[in-house]
Amino acid sequence: MDIHELTRTLNVNNQAKIVLLVADGLGGLPQEPGGPTELEAANTPNLDKVVERNVCGLIRPVLPGITPGSGPAHLALFGYDPMQYVIGRGAFEALGIGLELDPNDVAARGNFCTVDDDLAITDRRAGRIPTETCERLVQKLRGIHIDGVELVVEPGREHRFVLVLRGPGLQGDVEDTDPQAVGEQPRDAIPRHPGSYRTAKVVHQFVRQAREVLKDEHPANMITLRGFTRRPPIPSMQEVFGLNPAAIAVYPMYRGLALLVGMTVLQPVTDLSEQMEALKNHWDSHDFFFVHYKYTDSTGEDGDFDGKVRHIEYLDTVIPDILALEPSVFIATGDHSTPAKLREHSWHPVPVALAADACRPDLAKRFGERECLNGGLGRLEAKYLLPLALAYAGRLQKFGA
Amino acid sequence: MDIHELTRTLNVNNQAKIVLLVADGLGGLPQEPGGPTELEAANTPNLDKVVERNVCGLIRPVLPGITPGSGPAHLALFGYDPMQYVIGRGAFEALGIGLELDPNDVAARGNFCTVDDDLAITDRRAGRIPTETCERLVQKLRGIHIDGVELVVEPGREHRFVLVLRGPGLQGDVEDTDPQAVGEQPRDAIPRHPGSYRTAKVVHQFVRQAREVLKDEHPANMITLRGFTRRPPIPSMQEVFGLNPAAIAVYPMYRGLALLVGMTVLQPVTDLSEQMEALKNHWDSHDFFFVHYKYTDSTGEDGDFDGKVRHIEYLDTVIPDILALEPSVFIATGDHSTPAKLREHSWHPVPVALAADACRPDLAKRFGERECLNGGLGRLEAKYLLPLALAYAGRLQKFGA
Repeated sequence: MDIHELTRTLNVNNQAKIVLLVADGLGGLPQEPGGPTELEAANTPNLDKVVERNVCGLIRPVLPGITPGSGPAHLALFGYDPMQYVIGRGAFEALGIGLELDPNDVAARGNFCTVDDDLAITDRRAGRIPTETCERLVQKLRGIHIDGVELVVEPGREHRFVLVLRGPGLQGDVEDTDPQAVGEQPRDAIPRHPGSYRTAKVVHQFVRQAREVLKDEHPANMITLRGFTRRPPIPSMQEVFGLNPAAIAVYPMYRGLALLVGMTVLQPVTDLSEQMEALKNHWDSHDFFFVHYKYTDSTGEDGDFDGKVRHIEYLDTVIPDILALEPSVFIATGDHSTPAKLREHSWHPVPVALAADACRPDLAKRFGERECLNGGLGRLEAKYLLPLALAYAGRLQKFGA
Repeated sequence: MDIHELTRTLNVNNQAKIVLLVADGLGGLPQEPGGPTELEAANTPNLDKVVERNVCGLIRPVLPGITPGSGPAHLALFGYDPMQYVIGRGAFEALGIGLELDPNDVAARGNFCTVDDDLAITDRRAGRIPTETCERLVQKLRGIHIDGVELVVEPGREHRFVLVLRGPGLQGDVEDTDPQAVGEQPRDAIPRHPGSYRTAKVVHQFVRQAREVLKDEHPANMITLRGFTRRPPIPSMQEVFGLNPAAIAVYPMYRGLALLVGMTVLQPVTDLSEQMEALKNHWDSHDFFFVHYKYTDSTGEDGDFDGKVRHIEYLDTVIPDILALEPSVFIATGDHSTPAKLREHSWHPVPVALAADACRPDLAKRFGERECLNGGLGRLEAKYLLPLALAYAGRLQKFGA
C-alpha cells in the first residue's frame, strides 16, 4: 500500500485551503567557507516569523545524492513519487513551451541540423540558428500532411522545436532518429515494440517530408527527433488528494507540470504582484494554490549569489499578502537547491516552512538551511509534504479504527 | 525504479576520487551512564577538523533495530541494499577465509563432529579440535575425488572448514546435513528444488567418503555441512556506479566482500601504515578506495573500551595522510556499532563524516555520536552513502529535465 492508496480513501473535503509557495532552486550553499547560504544571508522577517511560530524542516526531492530536474522535483512537491512517474523528454519539452498534451499524444524533441550531400550530419544544431529562423522553418514543417494524424509543430529556442503527433493508435517508445554524433546519417525511427510500429511509420514519413521542404535551406537543411513519449499517466490531484487545485506560474513549463496533475492554470501572469492578484481573485474558487517563483533558481544558475539573495528578500515581502488570506496551511519551500556556488541544480535538501494551526513548537527561530536542521518536520521526502499539508488542513481522516 | 537504476544511467566518470575509510564497529555507547562513548572519549583532532569544516550525520546499516553482520553492513556501505543482496552462510564463510568464488561455485560451511557407532552425533564440534588438527584432517578430505566436480576444502579455525564444489550444473539450495542437535545422525543432503538434485548427490558422495577417511580419527570422526550457497549475483560497482574501485584491507573477509562487488584488492597489507602506503602507491590507478580498519570492532567485541578509544585515536593520526592526497570526497565511518559495553555488534546508528567541496555548513563541531545528531547529513540509510559520495564528487548527472 502506498501513500496514494491512503490519501485516496482518507481525504475529506472540509474546504480548508492550502497555499504552496515554491521558490525554485531555493536551497543554497555558502559562497565562501564558513559563510551564510543565500537564504541565510537574506533578510526575511516575514518568513522568519512563519518559522518561529510554526514548523520547518528539510525536504529531499528524490533520493540522497540525486539532483532532480524541474519535472521530478515538482512532481514530488505535488505529492507524486518522482521515481514512479517519469516524464519523458518529448513530453517535458512540450510542457516547457506550453503545449497541452492529450493522454494519447506522442511528443518528441526536434533539432534542426545540417547534413551534407550524403545526408551525413555536419552540425547537430545547424549552427544554433536564430530563434526567428527556427520559427520560419517551423512554418514550413507545418505544411507537412500525413493521413490520419494531426501534426503539431512548435518552435523552441534557436535550433529546437517540438513535434506532437495526435491521432488514434499512436504510442511512444520509438528509437531516436538523432544519432547524437556528427558524420552519421539521421537514423530510421525504429519501434521498440509492435505497438509503436504505426508511430515509427508516421515519424518516418514526417522526416522524409521534412527533408524535402528543408533541402534548399542552409544551414538548417534537415531535422533529428528524439525522446518520443506520451505524457505519463498520472492520476489527478482531485482523484488522489481530493483537492481542487490551481496553479499561478509565470513560466510555461511550470504551468505545464501543473496541468499534468490536473491543476487549473489561472489567468496569465507576468510577475509576482500579478500572481498575488490572481491568488486573491481566485481565492474562493479553489482549495489548493501552487505559486511558482522562478528567479531564485535563475539567479542561482547564473552564479549570482547577491541576486538570489535579493529575489528571496523580494519574495519575503509578499508573505503577509498570502497570510492575510488566512490559508489553513501555508508552505514555503523550493523544488530543489540551486546554489549560486555550483551554478546548477544540486542534490542538497531544501528548506521548508509550514504554517498551520496544529504546529508543534520546534527549535528553529528563523528560515535558513542550518536552522531547518532544528525543525520539527525533520528530514522529509518531498513527496510526503502534500499529504502532510492535508493533515495540517484537517483534510485527512484517521487510518484504521 | 531503484537507486541503482538511477546511478547506472546518471553516473559520469570525471576522474574525481573518493576515499571510504571504515572503522569497523565504530559506533559505541557510554561505559557508565552519562559518560562519553568510545568515539567521544577519544582525542581525534583530525576527524574533528573534518567535521567542523564539512558535514556529518548518522547512518543506519539496515533498518531500525536491526543489528547487521559484517556482510550486510559492508554491502550497504558499498551502495547495495543489504535486504536485497543476501550473502548465504557458505559463501560468507568462503569469503571469510579468503577463497575467491566463481559465480557458479557452491560453498558450504563444514564442521568436524563426533559420532558414535550408530552414527548419532555426540559432539557437534568434535571437542573444538585444535586448528592444526583441523588442517591435518582437511588434508585427508582433499584426497576425496568425485567425477566431474572440483572440490576445494579449506581449513578454518578449530573444528570449522569450508567446502567449495566447482563444476557445471551445480546450484545451492540443498538442505543442511547438520541436524543442529546431538543424539541425531547427520542428515541426508536433500535438494530443495529439482535444479539442486545434482548438487545434493555430490554432497552425499562427499559425506560418505569423508566418513570413510575419518572413521578411525577421534574425536573428529565425521563431518556436517550447512549453508550451501552460491555467491549472490551482485552487479559490480563499475556497472552500477561507474567506479574503478580498490580495497585496502588487512583481513580476508573484507577483501572477500570487496571482491564480491568488483573491487580490485590491492597488495597484501598487514597494518595501517602499509595500508596508507598502498593508498599512495595506487592513487593514480583507481577512483574509489575502501580502507578497512578492524581493531575498533575487535576491541569492542572484547569489551575493551579503552582499547577501542586508543585504536580510534591511532586511526585519527592517518587522516592527514589521506587528505594530503586531495580526494574529492573523503568519508570516515563504521559499518555498524560495536559498543564495548555490549561486547558485540549493535543496531545503533553509526557516525559518519564527509569532506568535500560542496558541503553545506551544519551545527556539528566535532566527531562523535551526539554531535552527529546536529549533522547536515541527518539520518541516512547506509546504502545511500555511496550515491551521496558520487554526488559530492560531481559524478552524478541530473535526473530528469
